Amino acid sequence: MDMHQLTRELNVQNNNKIVMLVADGLGGLPVQSLGPTELEAAKTPHLDALVAYGTCGSSIPVKPGISPGSGPGHLGLFGYDPLQYLIGRGALEATGIGFHLGPQDVAIRCNFCTLDNNGNITDRRAGRIPTEQSAPLAVRLREVSLPGIEVFVEPVKEHRFVVVLRGEGLGGDVADTDPQATGVPLAKPAARNDQSRRTAEVAAEFAREGAALLADQSAANAFSMRGFSVRPSLPSFQEVYGLRAAAVAVYPMYKGLAKLVGMEIVGDAKTLSDQMEIVKEHWEQYDFFFVHFKYTDSTGEDGDFDAKVKRIEEFDAAIPKISALKPSVTIVTGDHSTPSLLKAHSWHPVPTLIASDHCRPDRCKTFGEADCLSGGLGQFEAKYLMPLALAHAGRMGKFGA
Amino acid sequence: MDMHQLTRELNVQNNNKIVMLVADGLGGLPVQSLGPTELEAAKTPHLDALVAYGTCGSSIPVKPGISPGSGPGHLGLFGYDPLQYLIGRGALEATGIGFHLGPQDVAIRCNFCTLDNNGNITDRRAGRIPTEQSAPLAVRLREVSLPGIEVFVEPVKEHRFVVVLRGEGLGGDVADTDPQATGVPLAKPAARNDQSRRTAEVAAEFAREGAALLADQSAANAFSMRGFSVRPSLPSFQEVYGLRAAAVAVYPMYKGLAKLVGMEIVGDAKTLSDQMEIVKEHWEQYDFFFVHFKYTDSTGEDGDFDAKVKRIEEFDAAIPKISALKPSVTIVTGDHSTPSLLKAHSWHPVPTLIASDHCRPDRCKTFGEADCLSGGLGQFEAKYLMPLALAHAGRMGKFGA
Repeated sequence: MDMHQLTRELNVQNNNKIVMLVADGLGGLPVQSLGPTELEAAKTPHLDALVAYGTCGSSIPVKPGISPGSGPGHLGLFGYDPLQYLIGRGALEATGIGFHLGPQDVAIRCNFCTLDNNGNITDRRAGRIPTEQSAPLAVRLREVSLPGIEVFVEPVKEHRFVVVLRGEGLGGDVADTDPQATGVPLAKPAARNDQSRRTAEVAAEFAREGAALLADQSAANAFSMRGFSVRPSLPSFQEVYGLRAAAVAVYPMYKGLAKLVGMEIVGDAKTLSDQMEIVKEHWEQYDFFFVHFKYTDSTGEDGDFDAKVKRIEEFDAAIPKISALKPSVTIVTGDHSTPSLLKAHSWHPVPTLIASDHCRPDRCKTFGEADCLSGGLGQFEAKYLMPLALAHAGRMGKFGA
Repeated sequence: MDMHQLTRELNVQNNNKIVMLVADGLGGLPVQSLGPTELEAAKTPHLDALVAYGTCGSSIPVKPGISPGSGPGHLGLFGYDPLQYLIGRGALEATGIGFHLGPQDVAIRCNFCTLDNNGNITDRRAGRIPTEQSAPLAVRLREVSLPGIEVFVEPVKEHRFVVVLRGEGLGGDVADTDPQATGVPLAKPAARNDQSRRTAEVAAEFAREGAALLADQSAANAFSMRGFSVRPSLPSFQEVYGLRAAAVAVYPMYKGLAKLVGMEIVGDAKTLSDQMEIVKEHWEQYDFFFVHFKYTDSTGEDGDFDAKVKRIEEFDAAIPKISALKPSVTIVTGDHSTPSLLKAHSWHPVPTLIASDHCRPDRCKTFGEADCLSGGLGQFEAKYLMPLALAHAGRMGKFGA
């Protein structure tokens, strides 16, 4: 019996609200021996107040030692086992640019490349062609017309773009055409099962016509196709938790991930302040709010300890606007750690707090990595955060008599 | 998706070295109420220095409450789920005496016993016949000749010996011949599947001819056969972690276990000091070093608290020789606890530390059971130690985008 069978079966409906505040890449590392982490260095009076009232712990995004991308990181927070629910690369790339995949779609992550006169690859990424040059080429590929298939081509950054094929009978199991080597031709799209045969044929035709449209382009005269994938099949928040869920995010990737689990995207926030307003405006319409704050991750990725500290303090300053709404349960966490020391996502557990009237107090005083180690939630896999939230909100009944 | 699928898929190659120091049976218990454990009583300045720099935790060898033998204990440390990878008793016994099983081998753990004139068992262990008497009997059994089969007979301790049958088409699924009772005859070896039919026939012939060779022996005129098993099929360290791994151990059992996961046995150490030299000599040739120290376990098994304390101090004194090599990641742990109070392996979690430049500091100051409870690794199953080691060594990439 998996956790969703339990959350479904034990579901209790009430009016208690849950707010999940996700500071992306929240966890960090000291930059000096025995010094503080970014979160420990930041002044966070409002988070500390929640800590005093709530219960803390350390969230393991996937499994010990595993550094997740945004996809598995958020699936874990949303209570979907990230090793069970895998999002294909094409689907994640489409999601990342805000393309909402439908049930007849196959998404493909494409890379511009260069071929010599014999059709052999000379550069698998077309010299990481700048976006200003690559975007118009991607747009030109929209001229490809395939009978019975709707084609979407969306530029991404540098050599990357996304193709979505929409039509009937398109399976997602097609091998990559990138041979991962130069001096050899691109592979033909090859179906790995019967349901994907039409996808492979359509993709081959797209590759042929696309290459013809690029034939005169020295910067990039072809492209590889990778990570063919259909929309991942995830049960919705409504179905597994009985929650009307709203996502309040600024960046398309997080809106996209939220939409994959059936959250509604509300508002069009540009700032954290906008996000707080939007939560307030929609307070009565939803049971669950996912609020995503990006800059704790991006400053970590930049390796800028001080900037990350400032962003954490900005995040802290917004907390009273949520507390004023008196949610039944407030969660503060991150989808993974992004220590500025490493300039990358890491495997380190993420400081996490749950604040509600039904928390058992622990001895944590401030919100920080070392303090959270003595917290009442211990170390736990992120996928258990949603059941904990539901429990604290009185939204799960007793298991067994 | 299991952890080895992840470690394979996310593998990153670099030159960072990992050293895993295993003090067998490291964890202990106080002998006086509220007194220290063996590790807490020992003066361990070098381990404490690693603790200050690294991250600590408590390793659960298999699952809470389970006291493992050396086989499952080490498999867990090596990242092989000990409940998934079972080593048959015969294979473990052969491994324990340094017999390296090949792909055509079936290993059988045998016990000398005594039969009365009617062929009924009078003593299932032949009065725990002393090794001086049993070893020559085992050697005598080498005279058995079976067509098409190579037979190895190796004495073990007291009533125990190992038989290895080598030949084509020998499956390992044969029932024990020991009826676990006296006053009844030995059972005939019975195949439990078609692939093991020949094994059962060959084993029956070995039992017949062997008993004839022992007919005149009053101390032990027969033997039972148990734990028929082929070489366990374990993916190698190279395959699952991309590591060239060396084992530096004194005792055959630990060399054998290391060899089962594809480590190379280097040197011929007799002492811990030899082991340290061997690691140094082979430093450039391997990515991973498993160093096994036996005496923390044997003193625990002897129930000798003070001797175990001394052995821990001896182990501590060797640490600087490893630190001088500047490994990227140093792990100190045990395969299980062996409290001298219990004179046996126990289920208690094992104090564990990981030291590397990418550790998140915790508040542990000294290496001991109680201190480790506040460590940044929390309590974790031993099987996650290898993914954690790989992560800290920068040898695993990001999971998902």
